[in-house]
Amino acid sequence: MIGRFQPFHIGHLSAIREILSGFDEAIIAIGSSQFSHTFDNPFTAGERIEMIRLALREDGQDLSRIITVSIPDIGEHRLWVARLTSMCPRFEVAYTNNPFVKLLLEEQGIKTREAELYNREVFNATRIRTLMAEGGNWKKLVPKSVGDYIEEIGGVERVRIAKGSATSTLLR
Amino acid sequence: MIGRFQPFHIGHLSAIREILSGFDEAIIAIGSSQFSHTFDNPFTAGERIEMIRLALREDGQDLSRIITVSIPDIGEHRLWVARLTSMCPRFEVAYTNNPFVKLLLEEQGIKTREAELYNREVFNATRIRTLMAEGGNWKKLVPKSVGDYIEEIGGVERVRIAKGSATSTLLR
Amino acid sequence: MIGRFQPFHIGHLSAIREILSGFDEAIIAIGSSQFSHTFDNPFTAGERIEMIRLALREDGQDLSRIITVSIPDIGEHRLWVARLTSMCPRFEVAYTNNPFVKLLLEEQGIKTREAELYNREVFNATRIRTLMAEGGNWKKLVPKSVGDYIEEIGGVERVRIAKGSATSTLLR
Amino acid sequence: MIGRFQPFHIGHLSAIREILSGFDEAIIAIGSSQFSHTFDNPFTAGERIEMIRLALREDGQDLSRIITVSIPDIGEHRLWVARLTSMCPRFEVAYTNNPFVKLLLEEQGIKTREAELYNREVFNATRIRTLMAEGGNWKKLVPKSVGDYIEEIGGVERVRIAKGSATSTLLR
Amino acid sequence: MIGRFQPFHIGHLSAIREILSGFDEAIIAIGSSQFSHTFDNPFTAGERIEMIRLALREDGQDLSRIITVSIPDIGEHRLWVARLTSMCPRFEVAYTNNPFVKLLLEEQGIKTREAELYNREVFNATRIRTLMAEGGNWKKLVPKSVGDYIEEIGGVERVRIAKGSATSTLLR
Amino acid sequence: MIGRFQPFHIGHLSAIREILSGFDEAIIAIGSSQFSHTFDNPFTAGERIEMIRLALREDGQDLSRIITVSIPDIGEHRLWVARLTSMCPRFEVAYTNNPFVKLLLEEQGIKTREAELYNREVFNATRIRTLMAEGGNWKKLVPKSVGDYIEEIGGVERVRIAKGSATSTLLR
Repeated sequence: MIGRFQPFHIGHLSAIREILSGFDEAIIAIGSSQFSHTFDNPFTAGERIEMIRLALREDGQDLSRIITVSIPDIGEHRLWVARLTSMCPRFEVAYTNNPFVKLLLEEQGIKTREAELYNREVFNATRIRTLMAEGGNWKKLVPKSVGDYIEEIGGVERVRIAKGSATSTLLR
Repeated sequence: MIGRFQPFHIGHLSAIREILSGFDEAIIAIGSSQFSHTFDNPFTAGERIEMIRLALREDGQDLSRIITVSIPDIGEHRLWVARLTSMCPRFEVAYTNNPFVKLLLEEQGIKTREAELYNREVFNATRIRTLMAEGGNWKKLVPKSVGDYIEEIGGVERVRIAKGSATSTLLR
Repeated sequence: MIGRFQPFHIGHLSAIREILSGFDEAIIAIGSSQFSHTFDNPFTAGERIEMIRLALREDGQDLSRIITVSIPDIGEHRLWVARLTSMCPRFEVAYTNNPFVKLLLEEQGIKTREAELYNREVFNATRIRTLMAEGGNWKKLVPKSVGDYIEEIGGVERVRIAKGSATSTLLR
Repeated sequence: MIGRFQPFHIGHLSAIREILSGFDEAIIAIGSSQFSHTFDNPFTAGERIEMIRLALREDGQDLSRIITVSIPDIGEHRLWVARLTSMCPRFEVAYTNNPFVKLLLEEQGIKTREAELYNREVFNATRIRTLMAEGGNWKKLVPKSVGDYIEEIGGVERVRIAKGSATSTLLR
Repeated sequence: MIGRFQPFHIGHLSAIREILSGFDEAIIAIGSSQFSHTFDNPFTAGERIEMIRLALREDGQDLSRIITVSIPDIGEHRLWVARLTSMCPRFEVAYTNNPFVKLLLEEQGIKTREAELYNREVFNATRIRTLMAEGGNWKKLVPKSVGDYIEEIGGVERVRIAKGSATSTLLR
Repeated sequence: MIGRFQPFHIGHLSAIREILSGFDEAIIAIGSSQFSHTFDNPFTAGERIEMIRLALREDGQDLSRIITVSIPDIGEHRLWVARLTSMCPRFEVAYTNNPFVKLLLEEQGIKTREAELYNREVFNATRIRTLMAEGGNWKKLVPKSVGDYIEEIGGVERVRIAKGSATSTLLR
């Protein structure tokens, strides 16, 4: 399953439950893994791994069936599938709801599938980050353990500041 | 002649005809060559070389007088001219209609010229890609062989999806 | 003191005066140093060093107390503080008025401070570059020697062209 | 625990057993993760993850207590610790037997420890790869499941060819 | 046909003749294209394109059947085939005499072949560069036009100096 | 003046004295600036700046006439001169005793000169680092303040460990 998990929310959890109901193991590929401290990508790869494991443990999932893998973006999009397959254990099917990722994968002959149980309007990471920046009720959209973790590491403040600077460059 | 050729259109063809009428050989420098699968740069360097050769062959040009060279962008703009001259055979004049590229070249002492026969309002690559994404009549703006090639490789669908994701990041 | 200095203006000068009144030496860290020839970053690192030294000399400062250091941006924001401390002589306090840079520094245990005497609405580099592009009176916002230097190297024309192309990609 | 795991051998397994006897979870940080297909780094990050999981499962370890994380090398060594901490979940102690890695970690205030049960003369990855290239008995130095996996993916042949080309450049 | 062409010699020419006798077009993929000014890679990509075209013209080949493509090395070897196919027009068969490149290509399902007419002991680029550095008779191993070109651009002196510094780092 | 200054020694000091006797200002370009913690490049750019300033101050030089600039290596050697001129204030002459750097500079039309007063057999950075690693008397070859500084930051131990690992890769 491919995503950025900024942050890991209940929609993601639902998708992983679905995958684990059909397969022995799920590889969670954390895309854009090199980025952090921006509004689009506030959390480091390490923090995202912590969130994923907290959420799955809270949900009673067997963590031995889960493999987290960080995939740094590559500027040359045509090479991304080779990077993905190089960094992951072999897999049968790639789960993604992103049409662009689907296109890249299928052009290289990778079988793709969409997770079904996903309510994308409500459980949407951009919406969650916007709520975080604006003081809204974002915590109900993520597993409890994830919400607590984000608060513990000062994540809300980080998202708020990153939104203010609203830029991909470091310095303005 | 410097361009991105996303895609190669009739304006580009007209400019190359003009150059070949005055010089023995034309180097076609394909800029931003590392990018593909975005709305701004949908086609790989290899696909762009195929388009260029198809269009010139269709036009009856002698391909032995053409050298295609891919030039990956460099984040450090001040180094781009050094990269260009490093990757191309020696040349007398650089053709560009882009004021920014002209500035970079002239600051480093390279002689530049604009292609004259170019109708930029009509034969404009951004406009062509927008027509592709929106189901408009883009085929009349490119050589027939280029239009057929783009359809053969699924290029229209690729542009449409890339426009939808509307982002330079891989994952949203 | 951390900044981009695009260009070095009277607000920057005021901040450095303040720092030099309290410390033996000031390190001027030139961020985003690899970029140039864009509207956001028109000047090279070398040109920015020249501006800084001209302005401080004009102001009667002792240049032996100043160390300029160029810091290229790093895509992985979480690594930027390590790059900064790796490229600079050891320092006691980091001066920045940028909340995002402040956050990055403080997460890594670096003490930060804001320069006080800074009128950010008037002496603002983005505003100065906009005035340059639009033919406004930008020269009164920078030290005289900096204004003369920018004109000497064709900087106004460069900013104007870069604004027109309005893009971070090299070629459009 | 930091290593390259080219390949994962019985010494590595022994170290992980030691760590799991003292801690709840072990993070296995796969260094130089971007490399593969050279004599020093024959296996991709994905293949190394497969080896690690096969070996630990064969050994009866609880995989839910293991987190594999790939850490691409960074040319700027002084930034490597920031990359490591950015890509890993938080940890208490870093296990390494490499004096250079130990130095980098300790300069940045990270607590390090050496795994004790490690017979480095016998269970040594360079020695194993040399045996692979020269037709020696390498299989007794790795867990059975790892040996079978390497044969299945054509790893012996790959190491043999990579040794022949004996170079870090792609083309000779 | 994949090579580095440092420099283009009579063995390369013989291989291209063989390819052109069996195929309509030959793509000459210039590997390690970003490097120059070292003993292993003295000539820029642009200079290598000039050599190739001079040699083929001298040999009476039809240059319209030749496409030169520069392929920068990628540190992640597993991604190199994706880069190659991304930067080249589509091709049927890859010619290489390098077992390592052959392995990479075949692991990704690309059909490979070796050029037959190649006397690798005599016509060997490393041997030619060594002769250049040591004042030996290298000119008989390259087409006459290539020998003249190398002398014209000061190539012998460049190889001699690069051998002296004997390093891949810029500064010693 | 171009060098790596690993470490800054009495030969370097002598060269800078010579330059300051003939010019108003000296730019000290610190090459390979991104590297540290290897035997070839043990010290960070920041540490090298500290050494240079300590040595010049000890020697009674006027630091206001000195500009230190860090120049990261670029894999594409043909682009290095553009990077150098982009990162430095304008200069009249480049001082280097390295034939390879001299060649790169002169191919791009930069005037070069060698510092005369330099005893390269005795005051040689590689020899100094070897003495450091082997417990020899290296301190007499560097200015006193530099020797004290290196000891203060644990530099001797760092060089000794880096020599032991004897590799440019991070992990062995």
